[in-house]
Amino acid sequence: MAPVDRFVAETTFYVRYAETDAMGIVHHASYVVYFEEGRSHYARARGADYAAFERTGHYFAVSEVYARYQQPARYGQRLTVRCWIEDLRSRSVTFGYEIVDADTGTLHVTGHSKHICVNHGGQVTAIPPEWRARLQG
Amino acid sequence: MAPVDRFVAETTFYVRYAETDAMGIVHHASYVVYFEEGRSHYARARGADYAAFERTGHYFAVSEVYARYQQPARYGQRLTVRCWIEDLRSRSVTFGYEIVDADTGTLHVTGHSKHICVNHGGQVTAIPPEWRARLQG
Amino acid sequence: MAPVDRFVAETTFYVRYAETDAMGIVHHASYVVYFEEGRSHYARARGADYAAFERTGHYFAVSEVYARYQQPARYGQRLTVRCWIEDLRSRSVTFGYEIVDADTGTLHVTGHSKHICVNHGGQVTAIPPEWRARLQG
Amino acid sequence: MAPVDRFVAETTFYVRYAETDAMGIVHHASYVVYFEEGRSHYARARGADYAAFERTGHYFAVSEVYARYQQPARYGQRLTVRCWIEDLRSRSVTFGYEIVDADTGTLHVTGHSKHICVNHGGQVTAIPPEWRARLQG
Repeated sequence: MAPVDRFVAETTFYVRYAETDAMGIVHHASYVVYFEEGRSHYARARGADYAAFERTGHYFAVSEVYARYQQPARYGQRLTVRCWIEDLRSRSVTFGYEIVDADTGTLHVTGHSKHICVNHGGQVTAIPPEWRARLQG
Repeated sequence: MAPVDRFVAETTFYVRYAETDAMGIVHHASYVVYFEEGRSHYARARGADYAAFERTGHYFAVSEVYARYQQPARYGQRLTVRCWIEDLRSRSVTFGYEIVDADTGTLHVTGHSKHICVNHGGQVTAIPPEWRARLQG
Repeated sequence: MAPVDRFVAETTFYVRYAETDAMGIVHHASYVVYFEEGRSHYARARGADYAAFERTGHYFAVSEVYARYQQPARYGQRLTVRCWIEDLRSRSVTFGYEIVDADTGTLHVTGHSKHICVNHGGQVTAIPPEWRARLQG
Repeated sequence: MAPVDRFVAETTFYVRYAETDAMGIVHHASYVVYFEEGRSHYARARGADYAAFERTGHYFAVSEVYARYQQPARYGQRLTVRCWIEDLRSRSVTFGYEIVDADTGTLHVTGHSKHICVNHGGQVTAIPPEWRARLQG
């Protein structure tokens, strides 16, 4: 469940046909992309636009992704991705996610992902303080 | 250019990171998915929801896609897909598309796609009159 | 590490350009698709072709995916996906994965996924004995 | 049809489940990715590896893609992509494609794509003579 003690960003969109598979449901890898769009939106909502972050010469390399599928979603459904920070450390950040039907609230998928801050040369580095502050909010 | 003499549906979204490639720009196949989302939106805007159409036992099989890339788009950009009907025949429909930057209006991609109405058994068939009427508006 | 006490299927392919992202590396969701291709290959290698399985009216619904990213891969690299069964129960199966560079053996990604057997109506059901036997080998 | 008067590269692979859609067939945008893998393979077969080409500071920006869908393909099918050069100019190259079933030879999709040579700064530039020679063979 999305936590109540911190900022939770929400973004809503329609499932695209290309995101379904021959089982007639949303392909499980599509949710990993939805998670990513969830954290893009989180960053935008915090004034910490990820494109601007990359222009500072830093990246968040994904080190771990976990997804738990509860209920299949289908083409044309409106889904809401909720995204929050589970854990923020000097060099890494873990995001939590929850994907629900925007209209009925049915829970479809939960998960988390861990990201390591790296610089242009690929070295692990501390998250710049300004960005840390924005993420934390 | 989007035509002025007929209905043009517009849908706007952010470019997702997963849709970019190592060139740093949106991968050219992603626009084919954007076209599709454009026509999903067209159908929804006309009360001709494609999911409901499929439940009648009909499909629109894609028979042709053409895309012309004018200007690369990037992660985080807000894009608007404009979609309209170029040609509507008894058994087929051709959609036109234009993808522009939602903020600046810069033209990124144009294109069209042709679709043949088929039934559950895969036979080419006439577009049901009710759906034809909705598409035509 | 891939286990030594059971069957491990290996499939090798080139990274496609579309699978990369603006970071210049393979997008993290692409590996979830590579896992899937790894288990497709596992099934083929065991005479348990998944397409034939679906024709019996059964599906394996994905209930969990976990990926751990060790080292980024890039366009044009030849990757080998190793896939094995971690756990086989009456109604579910867990696959383990390891993705390495086919030429140097460098480890890129490890992970696992859990799948529940469901019938056409969406009910959880026992894996048919014949398919269980094939998977187990 | 693949031409008989020039080099035609062939690459064969299995359709992945993720590449299908709710219609039960390969999603039409997947073939655009198959085309790309076809030309990657063309380049490799000519000793003109595209990753090495990009390291020279040049890119081929896609300016046009056209696909004509004849017959749907399905999960697990083995497809062969044939790729050849339709037209080679000082600053651009057009590739032709044909995608057939590797086992039966059934024709699934044909198409072409046009690519403009650009340098790191995004300026249109002549294809370096060495690479031109390799492509031409």
